[in-house]
Amino acid sequence: MKHELLTVDDVTGCWAIMPTPSKPNASDPSAKDTVDLDETARVAEALVASGVNGILSLGTFGECATTTWEEKEAFMRTLVETVRGRVPVFGGATSLNTRETIRMTKAAREIGVDGVMLGLPMWVQPDVPTAVQFYRDVAAACPDVAICAYANPEAFKFEFPRAFWAQIAEIPQVVSAKYISTAALYADLNLTKRRIRLMPLDVDYYAAARIDPEACTAFWTSGAVCGPTPAIQLRDLVAEARKTGDWTRAKALTDRIGMTYRTLFPNGSFKEFSVYNIGIEKARMDAAGWMTAGPCRPPYSLVPEPVLEGARESGRQWARLAAELEAESKK
Amino acid sequence: MKHELLTVDDVTGCWAIMPTPSKPNASDPSAKDTVDLDETARVAEALVASGVNGILSLGTFGECATTTWEEKEAFMRTLVETVRGRVPVFGGATSLNTRETIRMTKAAREIGVDGVMLGLPMWVQPDVPTAVQFYRDVAAACPDVAICAYANPEAFKFEFPRAFWAQIAEIPQVVSAKYISTAALYADLNLTKRRIRLMPLDVDYYAAARIDPEACTAFWTSGAVCGPTPAIQLRDLVAEARKTGDWTRAKALTDRIGMTYRTLFPNGSFKEFSVYNIGIEKARMDAAGWMTAGPCRPPYSLVPEPVLEGARESGRQWARLAAELEAESKK
Amino acid sequence: MKHELLTVDDVTGCWAIMPTPSKPNASDPSAKDTVDLDETARVAEALVASGVNGILSLGTFGECATTTWEEKEAFMRTLVETVRGRVPVFGGATSLNTRETIRMTKAAREIGVDGVMLGLPMWVQPDVPTAVQFYRDVAAACPDVAICAYANPEAFKFEFPRAFWAQIAEIPQVVSAKYISTAALYADLNLTKRRIRLMPLDVDYYAAARIDPEACTAFWTSGAVCGPTPAIQLRDLVAEARKTGDWTRAKALTDRIGMTYRTLFPNGSFKEFSVYNIGIEKARMDAAGWMTAGPCRPPYSLVPEPVLEGARESGRQWARLAAELEAESKK
Amino acid sequence: MKHELLTVDDVTGCWAIMPTPSKPNASDPSAKDTVDLDETARVAEALVASGVNGILSLGTFGECATTTWEEKEAFMRTLVETVRGRVPVFGGATSLNTRETIRMTKAAREIGVDGVMLGLPMWVQPDVPTAVQFYRDVAAACPDVAICAYANPEAFKFEFPRAFWAQIAEIPQVVSAKYISTAALYADLNLTKRRIRLMPLDVDYYAAARIDPEACTAFWTSGAVCGPTPAIQLRDLVAEARKTGDWTRAKALTDRIGMTYRTLFPNGSFKEFSVYNIGIEKARMDAAGWMTAGPCRPPYSLVPEPVLEGARESGRQWARLAAELEAESKK
Repeated sequence: MKHELLTVDDVTGCWAIMPTPSKPNASDPSAKDTVDLDETARVAEALVASGVNGILSLGTFGECATTTWEEKEAFMRTLVETVRGRVPVFGGATSLNTRETIRMTKAAREIGVDGVMLGLPMWVQPDVPTAVQFYRDVAAACPDVAICAYANPEAFKFEFPRAFWAQIAEIPQVVSAKYISTAALYADLNLTKRRIRLMPLDVDYYAAARIDPEACTAFWTSGAVCGPTPAIQLRDLVAEARKTGDWTRAKALTDRIGMTYRTLFPNGSFKEFSVYNIGIEKARMDAAGWMTAGPCRPPYSLVPEPVLEGARESGRQWARLAAELEAESKK
Repeated sequence: MKHELLTVDDVTGCWAIMPTPSKPNASDPSAKDTVDLDETARVAEALVASGVNGILSLGTFGECATTTWEEKEAFMRTLVETVRGRVPVFGGATSLNTRETIRMTKAAREIGVDGVMLGLPMWVQPDVPTAVQFYRDVAAACPDVAICAYANPEAFKFEFPRAFWAQIAEIPQVVSAKYISTAALYADLNLTKRRIRLMPLDVDYYAAARIDPEACTAFWTSGAVCGPTPAIQLRDLVAEARKTGDWTRAKALTDRIGMTYRTLFPNGSFKEFSVYNIGIEKARMDAAGWMTAGPCRPPYSLVPEPVLEGARESGRQWARLAAELEAESKK
Repeated sequence: MKHELLTVDDVTGCWAIMPTPSKPNASDPSAKDTVDLDETARVAEALVASGVNGILSLGTFGECATTTWEEKEAFMRTLVETVRGRVPVFGGATSLNTRETIRMTKAAREIGVDGVMLGLPMWVQPDVPTAVQFYRDVAAACPDVAICAYANPEAFKFEFPRAFWAQIAEIPQVVSAKYISTAALYADLNLTKRRIRLMPLDVDYYAAARIDPEACTAFWTSGAVCGPTPAIQLRDLVAEARKTGDWTRAKALTDRIGMTYRTLFPNGSFKEFSVYNIGIEKARMDAAGWMTAGPCRPPYSLVPEPVLEGARESGRQWARLAAELEAESKK
Repeated sequence: MKHELLTVDDVTGCWAIMPTPSKPNASDPSAKDTVDLDETARVAEALVASGVNGILSLGTFGECATTTWEEKEAFMRTLVETVRGRVPVFGGATSLNTRETIRMTKAAREIGVDGVMLGLPMWVQPDVPTAVQFYRDVAAACPDVAICAYANPEAFKFEFPRAFWAQIAEIPQVVSAKYISTAALYADLNLTKRRIRLMPLDVDYYAAARIDPEACTAFWTSGAVCGPTPAIQLRDLVAEARKTGDWTRAKALTDRIGMTYRTLFPNGSFKEFSVYNIGIEKARMDAAGWMTAGPCRPPYSLVPEPVLEGARESGRQWARLAAELEAESKK
C-alpha cells in the first residue's frame, strides 16, 4: 500500500492525538496484547466521522515508550484499516537509537501510515549536530515517509534551540512538528522558512493563527478524544476568522477551552505535569467519557490521587463544554 | 517628589532598557563610582528625544547584581533628572531578600522613579507561595511605586508557572512584566485578566500584537540603545496595523530585526546565552556605536571571545538596519 | 584588632555552624534589628564552652541572604566579642557581586572575624574562570582574611567541577571548604593538593576520616546547636581511632547520628530539601531545644507543615541522642 | 543452562565493564550485525585470563541504547560461551519500559548470563515509587536473575535519593549497584543495610574501601579494557591493605590511576562528559590499544575533536601506567 508523500500543505486543521487504548489488565507487567483494538477502531472511526483532519499517535500518552512492537503494529494496522485513507495517519517510532527508529518507521510505512511522529533517542542528552543528524538519517533511510518532529524538551533532554529548527527545515520529509511553545513561535516560523507546519496545542491555536494566519493552519489536540466538538469548532471558527477578519468567536471559544485546563497541571506547573503526563492524560480522557483510554502500562501506572483528580476534573469540564457547544449549535 | 501611581494603561509602546554605562576601569574589583553619569544623561536624553515611551533599567545587563547601592542611586538620580517626567522611568531593586528590596524601592521612589523592575530573591529556589508573597510584601510596603515583574527563569530559578501569574495579577501595583515567552503568552494574558502589561522583546512584539492587539501594546527592547530607529518604527508600524488591519509592514520590519539576532545567541542556545548575557548585551551595544555601555563589572567580565564576536556582529547589524531605515525614511 | 592569618592547619575538629538567632517578629518584612543578640552571645559562649574548634556563620540557614548588613555587623560583633579569640570565627560575605563581597569581607575583618565563608554571586550561572576569578579577586583585596569556600551547587548554580578545585587550591587564603560530597572527596583532595581543608557534614566525617585520616581532620555541623555532645564526641572518637586504629566506636556513633537525619529531607530528596532548607534547619534547631533559632526572615518564611514536621522530628531525635550520650558518659 | 542465583557475597573484586566492540562501519545507520564477535571473544578471554572477578556489559558505553536486540543477543552469547562460568557475567536489559526489560532479562538468562545491569525507563522522569516498583516488577518476573542497579542520574533523569536505596535493598535479587558517588556512599551503605554491593569506579575504590573495608569489596572499571594491570593491582593492593592495615601502596596506585583521568572530562565537568560519554570512553579504549572498541553506533557518533583528544590522551596515559606497573612488577 503506497501513498504519495505528504507535504507541509497536507497538514492543516485539527489533528487529533489518540492514546493507545488499553485493556483492563494493562498495568500488569505480565500482560500481553494490552491494546484494545475494538476501542481503537471505534475511536478512529468516530474521529474521522467527527471531521478531524489527521490523526497522530504513539507519542507520550500514546505510550510509545511502554507498548511492545507487536502492540504498536497491531494498533497501527487497526488504525490504518479503519481510517482507509480518509485522513492522514501518523504512527510513532521513537526509540533509543537511529537504527531501531528506522526499522520501525519502515515497518509502519508498510502497514500504511502516512508518517511518523518522532522524538529523539534519550539515553544521552544530544547536542544540536546529533539531534539534526538523527532526523537526517531517518529521512534518508525512509524516503517515502513523512515526519512530524516531536519537540518535547522534558522527554528528550533537548532544548530544541534555534539552530535545530533552522537545520531540520532543510529535510523535506519533516512536514510538521508537535510543538510546545517553549521557544518563540514566530522566530521558529522564520527559522524554518515556514517549511514545517508547527502545530501548537488546541488552546494555543488561536494565538498562533493570529501570529501568522497563513502558516499556522493546524493544531494538535488530545482533547478531541474527550469529545471532538470543541476542537472541530475551534478549527472552523479560526478558518472563518481568517476569511472575515473577525476573530471574536474564535477567541471566545479558546477562552472556554482554556477554562477546562485549569486543573490539568499539578500546582500549575509544567514540570510536575511532565512527571505524570501519561496518567494525567489518560485519566482526563476516561473521565470525559467519550472513549476508554484505559490504565497506564508499566512502569508509569503509579500516579498520586490528587494529581489524578485534577486530571479527571479537566476531562469532565471538556465533556461539559462539548455538550454545551452541541446544544448551542442546535439552537 | 510625588507622582501619580502608574497603571497598566500607562504602559504602552516602546520601552527601552538602558544598561548602566560604565567607566573604562569598571572591571577592576577595586574601582569605585564606575557609572559614567555623563553617558547616562546623554543616552537618557537621546532616548527621550527619539520618542521611546518608557525607560527600564537595572535588570540583568543593567547590572543590578554588580553595581553598588551608591552607584544605583547616582544612576537613577541622573536618569530621573534627565528625563524630567517626559516618560515613565523604572529603576531596579532586585536583591537577596524582601527587606533590602523594600529599602531600595522606597529610596528609588524618593529619587523619583515611577516604578521598579523586580526579580525574585535567588539564593533559594522559591515555590509559588514564596514568590507571590514577595511581590505582595514589596507592594504593601511601597504603595506608591509601580512594579514591573521581571520574569527571568534562569536568573531567579523559577518556572514562572500559571499559578504565579494568576496570583500576582491580584496585586494592583504590578502593572507590567518583562516577559520572556517561556510560557504561552495567550494563556498568561487570560490568567492575569489583562491587568498586567506583559511586555515581550522587540522581535516578539509583532506576534504578541497579533495575538491580542488590545492587550499587547508594549514591548521592551535592548536594541533601542543600539540605535532607536528600528524599535520606534516597529512601534509605529504595529500601531498603524492595529488601525488599518494591514500588518504587512510590521511583519517585514520584524523579520529584518530578527535577522540581526542570528549571531547573538551562542550556538543558538538560550541557556548558553544566559551564562554570558551581561557581556553579550554590552558588547552588542558597544559594537553598534550608538552608546558606550562599557566594560562589565566583576565577576561577570570574563566572556569567551567567540561569544563576544557573535554579540558584536549582532550589534553591527542592528546599527546597519537603523541606518537603512533612516535612509529609507528620507526617500 | 588584628590576628595572624589562619592556615589550613588551623582548621581541625568540630566546626559548628550557627544560625543568626531571630526575634519573634523576624518574618515581618517591616521588622528591623531582627537579630537576637542575647541569644547570639549565649549560644556562642555555650559552643565555646562545649569545646567546638571553630564557628562558621552567615551561610544559607545563617540567613546571609536575608539579613541586612547592619544585622550582619551586629551579629558578627557579638560573636567576636563573646568568643574573644578562644576559637576561630568565620563570618559571611556572600553577595551578588565581587565588590560588595570585598566590602563586607573587609568590614568583617575590622570587626575581628578570622575568616569568611564565601559562596558565589548567583544572579548569573558562572563558568569556571568566573568562579575562580571571584575568589582570586576577594583574596587579593583582603589579604589578611581566611576564606572558607562554600560549595553549595543548588544555591550558587555551579557544579563545583574538578577544574574549580584544582585552581582555587592555588589561592593561599582559601583554607577550608564547606563541602557537600557531590563530587568525589578523594579526587578533590588530590586536586587541591590537600591545601584546603574539605569539611564534610558531621554524618559524613567518619567516612572522610577513613578515606584520608591526615587530610580530613575537620567537619561542619549544624547539629551542634541542637546540642553539641554528639558532634564533640564524634570528633573525639575519630581522633582516638586515628591513633588506635580502632574505628568501631566512631562508626557506631556516626550511625546513631545518621538515624536522626531520616526525617530531615522531604521525601528523602536533597533537591526538595534545598527549596526549604532555611526553614527546615531552623525548625530542627528550635525543636531540639538547645537554642532558639527563631522564625525565618522574608521571603523564606513559608514552609509546608509536613516539611516542618520532618525537620522538628529530626531535631527532637538529635536532642534525645545528645541526652543519651551524656547519660552514657556518666556511667 | 541454569546457575545458582548470585548473592551480594559473590560480588567482590574487580568488575570490568566491556564495551560492545563494533565493526568499522558501525556508525552507518544502515549497518547490520555491527558487533565484532571475534574481538568480543578475544577481550572476554583476555579479561578472564588477567584475573578480573566479573564482567559487566551493555550499559552506557556498552551501547545498550544503540545496539539491536539481535546484536545484544549475539554479544551476550559470545560472552557467556567464552567465559564459561569462570567469572560472573552481567548483560544489560535497560529499555523504555518494564515489559521489554523483563522480556530481555529472561532471554539474557536463557543465554546464560548471571545477571543484568539495569537502568530505569527514561522517557518520563520517574518518582521514587515508580523507580522502586520497576525493579520490583523485574525481579518478580525473573526470579533467577541477579540485578545490578545502574545508578546514573544523567541518563535516567533520577536523583537516586535516599528513599530509593532504602527501598530497593528489600529486593533480594538486587545484589550490586554501578554506583557514582553523587550521594554519600556511607549513608547509602547504611540505608541499604549493606545488602547491595555498591561498586564505585576504580579511582574511587581506595576511598570506598577505607570507609567500609568489609562492605566495599568490589569496584567497576572501564579502564580494565585499556589494559587490566592497574585495576588488578589496585584490587590486590586494597585486599592486602585490608589485612595488613597499611594502605600506603593502595593509595599511591590510586593516585597514579587518578592522573590518567585528568583529560577525560571535558573542562573537568561531569555534565559535559555525560553528553559525549560513549564516544569519550570508546576513544579512550581505542587509544590505549589493548582492545578495539570501534566506532560509536548512531546517533551518538558525532563528538567534537577536542573532546575526543582529551579522551585519547587519557587512554594513552592508562596504557603507559599499565606498562610501567608491569615493568615494576618484573623487578
